[in-house]
Amino acid sequence: MNSRGFPVDDLALREYLDFACKAVEIAAGAILPHFRSQVSAQDKGGALGYDPVTIADEAAERVIRDEIRRVYPDDGILGEEQGRLAGTSGRTWIIDPIDGTKAFVTGQLHWGILLALNDGQRPVLGVMHQPYVGETFVGSRLGSELRRGSTRQALRCRPCGRIEDAVVCTAQPDYLIGPGERAAFDAIAARARLARYGGDCYLFALLAAGLVDLVIESGLQPYDIQPMIPIVEAAGGLVTTWRGGNANEGGQVVAAGDERLHRAALEML
Amino acid sequence: MNSRGFPVDDLALREYLDFACKAVEIAAGAILPHFRSQVSAQDKGGALGYDPVTIADEAAERVIRDEIRRVYPDDGILGEEQGRLAGTSGRTWIIDPIDGTKAFVTGQLHWGILLALNDGQRPVLGVMHQPYVGETFVGSRLGSELRRGSTRQALRCRPCGRIEDAVVCTAQPDYLIGPGERAAFDAIAARARLARYGGDCYLFALLAAGLVDLVIESGLQPYDIQPMIPIVEAAGGLVTTWRGGNANEGGQVVAAGDERLHRAALEML
Repeated sequence: MNSRGFPVDDLALREYLDFACKAVEIAAGAILPHFRSQVSAQDKGGALGYDPVTIADEAAERVIRDEIRRVYPDDGILGEEQGRLAGTSGRTWIIDPIDGTKAFVTGQLHWGILLALNDGQRPVLGVMHQPYVGETFVGSRLGSELRRGSTRQALRCRPCGRIEDAVVCTAQPDYLIGPGERAAFDAIAARARLARYGGDCYLFALLAAGLVDLVIESGLQPYDIQPMIPIVEAAGGLVTTWRGGNANEGGQVVAAGDERLHRAALEML
Repeated sequence: MNSRGFPVDDLALREYLDFACKAVEIAAGAILPHFRSQVSAQDKGGALGYDPVTIADEAAERVIRDEIRRVYPDDGILGEEQGRLAGTSGRTWIIDPIDGTKAFVTGQLHWGILLALNDGQRPVLGVMHQPYVGETFVGSRLGSELRRGSTRQALRCRPCGRIEDAVVCTAQPDYLIGPGERAAFDAIAARARLARYGGDCYLFALLAAGLVDLVIESGLQPYDIQPMIPIVEAAGGLVTTWRGGNANEGGQVVAAGDERLHRAALEML
């Protein structure tokens, strides 16, 4: 894989976006039969806790990988379940076949199929698809939108300059296990207008939709966050590490819809 | 209102069920235009915290009350937003126009329109409708099912005898503010296979669907829980207070899909 990759022009980007939206829809066919079907979940968390991998998860990633290799055989692949496949184009597809597996296995709705294309430097497009609900969040420098049926709704973060006015979310407070992480979140949550738990990929999508102001996570993997970055950024939001750096590799991630709020959050994290 | 009410026969029950399903669908028309529309939320929580009441909430309850008064003018009504209206039939309709208002105002999906009919002693039918997702959970002694489009799926709790094997949920740990409540939940969560936060009415629906084993809540109102009781009970589950008593009035509520698990939970609560 090239260290920098090649620039992706608008025409190519549109083609990749179309491909990505089709790929996640095909993957949905491997997932939906298992949703709310009481599939048995493997425990891959071991001593670290319960982290189910469903049949659906593995089947969906296989479907997406097959599609990529068929259409873009020179591209690399990084997937949650089946690891890294080197490419020669400089581009890498990033797959999280089911983000929110715990929501999925309990029949809840806040999960999604995530797919990003990284050009060697950054994710240039991101797609999040929830096939049971029928919605797809799409982002790239061409814009950010929610597609549902025949409707297309442009996404835009809302202004919110102060923590006191913010809706602040994290997927699960138990995930904030690093030194001081939970205390830092709790301090922000205590000042916020509203703190909400749960949501995984939906939190970033709803931040892009202007319904959530601040998302604070830790322990994210690249495939958890890269698909969401173009969706948030094209809606006017920011996604960085807790120290303000590049969030592509995951870890401690903070996303905000307003740069004033982002600054205020960084000061407390 | 009579203190005991009159028995509701099967024919009448079917009619009430049809009515309830229609009423929540009509109410959905008052709600959906406000979902994810960044409606301004009033703060009715005051010093107790943030508890938004949206325009949608109030409009939906008004619609349901109007329908009840038009079709069943002798029945009483108890609604979250607009209080109690005495009836003469012995029956009372119980309305929570949007259960899960915090999910609603943040664009999340785990909320529902709840409606129950209480015959003077107990809720004899319950309906939970999520119009954006398009699903309706329905329960009565005639059975418990999930309706979506033209599909009807019977609901059945799954067997789970031990806390160690259970998926345990609560809407938000912060709600467990009574003395010892949080500690009791945390002790159960620590032993459980998986603990999940968030979900409100969806937690009870997913328990009826055999995807969640134990739901532990506190501070519930009658309109939060009565619509969910027939859905859980007709699926084979139990809903009681933490002391094992009648849960119709809300408060501390525990629901389990298996009576062995219910017993084990009561011992720890």
